[in-house]
Amino acid sequence: MNKQAIPYKIYLKENEMPKQWYNVRADMKEKPAPLLNPVTHQPMSAEELSVVFCEELVRQELNDEDRYIDIPQEIQDFYKMYRPSPLVRAYCLEKQLDTPAKIYYKFEGNNTSGSHKLNSAIAQAYYAKKQGLKGVTTETGAGQWGTALSMACAYLGLDCQVYMVKVSYEQKPFRREVMRTYGASVTPSPSVTTEAGRRILKAHPGTGGSLGCAISEAVEAATSQDGYRYVLGSVLNQVLLHQSVIGVETKAALDQYGIVPDIIIGCAGGGSNLGGLISPFMGEKLRGERDYRFIAVEPASCPSLTRGKFVYDFCDTGMICPLAKMHTLGSNFIPSSSHAGGLRYHGMNSVLSQLYHEGYMEAVAVEQSLVFEAAVQFARIEGILPAPESSHAIRVAIDEALRCKETGEEKTIVFGLTGTGYFDMFAYEKYNNGEMKDYIPTDEELRRGLEKLPQLR
Amino acid sequence: MNKQAIPYKIYLKENEMPKQWYNVRADMKEKPAPLLNPVTHQPMSAEELSVVFCEELVRQELNDEDRYIDIPQEIQDFYKMYRPSPLVRAYCLEKQLDTPAKIYYKFEGNNTSGSHKLNSAIAQAYYAKKQGLKGVTTETGAGQWGTALSMACAYLGLDCQVYMVKVSYEQKPFRREVMRTYGASVTPSPSVTTEAGRRILKAHPGTGGSLGCAISEAVEAATSQDGYRYVLGSVLNQVLLHQSVIGVETKAALDQYGIVPDIIIGCAGGGSNLGGLISPFMGEKLRGERDYRFIAVEPASCPSLTRGKFVYDFCDTGMICPLAKMHTLGSNFIPSSSHAGGLRYHGMNSVLSQLYHEGYMEAVAVEQSLVFEAAVQFARIEGILPAPESSHAIRVAIDEALRCKETGEEKTIVFGLTGTGYFDMFAYEKYNNGEMKDYIPTDEELRRGLEKLPQLR
Repeated sequence: MNKQAIPYKIYLKENEMPKQWYNVRADMKEKPAPLLNPVTHQPMSAEELSVVFCEELVRQELNDEDRYIDIPQEIQDFYKMYRPSPLVRAYCLEKQLDTPAKIYYKFEGNNTSGSHKLNSAIAQAYYAKKQGLKGVTTETGAGQWGTALSMACAYLGLDCQVYMVKVSYEQKPFRREVMRTYGASVTPSPSVTTEAGRRILKAHPGTGGSLGCAISEAVEAATSQDGYRYVLGSVLNQVLLHQSVIGVETKAALDQYGIVPDIIIGCAGGGSNLGGLISPFMGEKLRGERDYRFIAVEPASCPSLTRGKFVYDFCDTGMICPLAKMHTLGSNFIPSSSHAGGLRYHGMNSVLSQLYHEGYMEAVAVEQSLVFEAAVQFARIEGILPAPESSHAIRVAIDEALRCKETGEEKTIVFGLTGTGYFDMFAYEKYNNGEMKDYIPTDEELRRGLEKLPQLR
Repeated sequence: MNKQAIPYKIYLKENEMPKQWYNVRADMKEKPAPLLNPVTHQPMSAEELSVVFCEELVRQELNDEDRYIDIPQEIQDFYKMYRPSPLVRAYCLEKQLDTPAKIYYKFEGNNTSGSHKLNSAIAQAYYAKKQGLKGVTTETGAGQWGTALSMACAYLGLDCQVYMVKVSYEQKPFRREVMRTYGASVTPSPSVTTEAGRRILKAHPGTGGSLGCAISEAVEAATSQDGYRYVLGSVLNQVLLHQSVIGVETKAALDQYGIVPDIIIGCAGGGSNLGGLISPFMGEKLRGERDYRFIAVEPASCPSLTRGKFVYDFCDTGMICPLAKMHTLGSNFIPSSSHAGGLRYHGMNSVLSQLYHEGYMEAVAVEQSLVFEAAVQFARIEGILPAPESSHAIRVAIDEALRCKETGEEKTIVFGLTGTGYFDMFAYEKYNNGEMKDYIPTDEELRRGLEKLPQLR
């Protein structure tokens, strides 16, 4: 155990940065259930998936055997431009809370996309380029993923077509403009440019759109153009794999100082950041080498883990994507319009759903006013304005640290600070003006959300 | 000379971070001219200055003797939360330009204020707190300084009152909201809350305001409230002193790898970033120990160094601040409304003005369309969306690197990347839409700007 003083920020040296991603599926006895063909309900073959996704990404999606997967040198080089991200000791927050707990956060917001999404964007864009494709299509909600993908595509010289949830497109013109600055074309969804979009517009005239709907459009755009494939910023196993760079770096930094976390906390929408952060630690737990508490934090208004069902479901509204077995509120579920904290996806990545189902991970749902309260407290004392999404993890980290204060336990808490809130000032404004409302869906609303589950044969 | 490979980013270790600021005035044979009382035209005494500024800051303002000034431990600790900033090797840009030049940039944008302004904000807030004050007042234009000061005040528990140029207040609601999130009160200027504001509103009904006008209001607010002082984010010598942390870190990082820059480039509005970046290098030049080329880059539409006059002038529109001898376009000068690139102040810090006057530094004025062209090129290849201000330095760094390509010289270029452009997307949108216009003021406009120079006895 290294006895040096812990600096405010631990940065790995360039030569200490990860050269391999960590595939936690290799450690799982019960593998996550396979994706199913939405028509035949049979497991999707690599060939079928390759119509939509890049070939190498399909291999990664289906690989539940290899624990370590090499990061291509070109991706390592791109990572060097904005990584390693710092593992920060929250000295000031600890002092303010007057807690014996030691709090660390892995900060992924120090890049222009403003979040961890860039870790997977560059990987997906790289494999698309390597396959000789012209470009990629995707959807984006709040815009972090679309920005990240635009950046990766600009760097590699790939065309990038983003379908942006219409309500975000209109409320976040700056996000849209960042993507355009990186050369992406951005279309508000639902749009008339796709069959799926036209169908949704006909059924719901004037709709502000949803992620599930934008996914349908982006998939259609990919499969209807030569030399294009679809890429996705969360939910898929390949994304968790790429995001494991967060966890591998975190573990390396902690190991250098002999720090062993007791609790690891991450916000959970589709699960990419949480899954990436916990992967190498979860591997140890699954192999019985060490125990950790893992806590997924989700919005009370979109509680897929704590109140959803663990079943096969559609990943998109248009029901054209493969079916995934996951904790889900149903592709029909739409969070209350008063919800401002992100993490709006109806389902959760299959790996995380399985691990939660088996009891390897806990989950907590928190109301948004408490999330923003934590966000502002954190911003003022730690100097970083967090994304609403990330602030879910801050909330629970503070709660756990205050619990340590009561019990006197010196626990070590690590949480993922996935990004910054510079493009979320409408939400902060609401909070600052005392106009933020919490909403907890009723059991009846949850029942209705699940009405359109696929009927497996 | 150290022969190790240069990493993409050089980070100093925490224990290698600067413990002293570098006061370049100590190296100047010809000291910068003193501030004058706007009424008596006599040099301002410490006592007079203390009505407006904190006592310790007055001492720093007047200190042209001590080369090194200790950074208080509390400020060092705050610096550890977001510093050291990385010195980045622009490998990707070099490759794209196909230049033999080696390009480095010191990136100050990785903090929530989005710029280097935080370096001086925390220092000024610290001394205010130490003096037992209740709060501080200031002005902000684009909002970087106001954000930085809000962050510093939130951390220390000081009240923070910001007068924000009205046109920015309206066009940048997100900036305003970040400041409010940090607990600051933000007033659009000119306002009816001050005598100065009411006077300006009467003379120019419906005006969008200016920095000079917001300064007048902030100074009045400070002097008319008990326990308040005024703080300023640029122009003053104390600000240059605090910003020298940029230069000291840069030099330490370069020294570790035996790198000696040939050219050091910074954008120049009031001069805080440029002055801070070059301070320790300029010290060597002034002492005759080593030669460097220093290039100040300013907007062609607000060219205080290249087309201004080196005279005593008012620092504010209301003419209530001390007079400073500087390169100035006159406090009457207002840049064209088509100007979107920041750096709008009519004058330039006295130290830099003096050094430029004596030929120790060059200056270049660039048109904004070329600045944004460089910004977009840089964003796409280096992955950072730069602030328009910072992009002035990028433009000239690229130009110098291309010159090296022609001549085959392997020059080492260092430039200051002062901040990020997340809150400047209106300007980027203009550029992306091909609607950005350049404007070069006519000689007649410059003459009119200088019409209201103080008539010294």
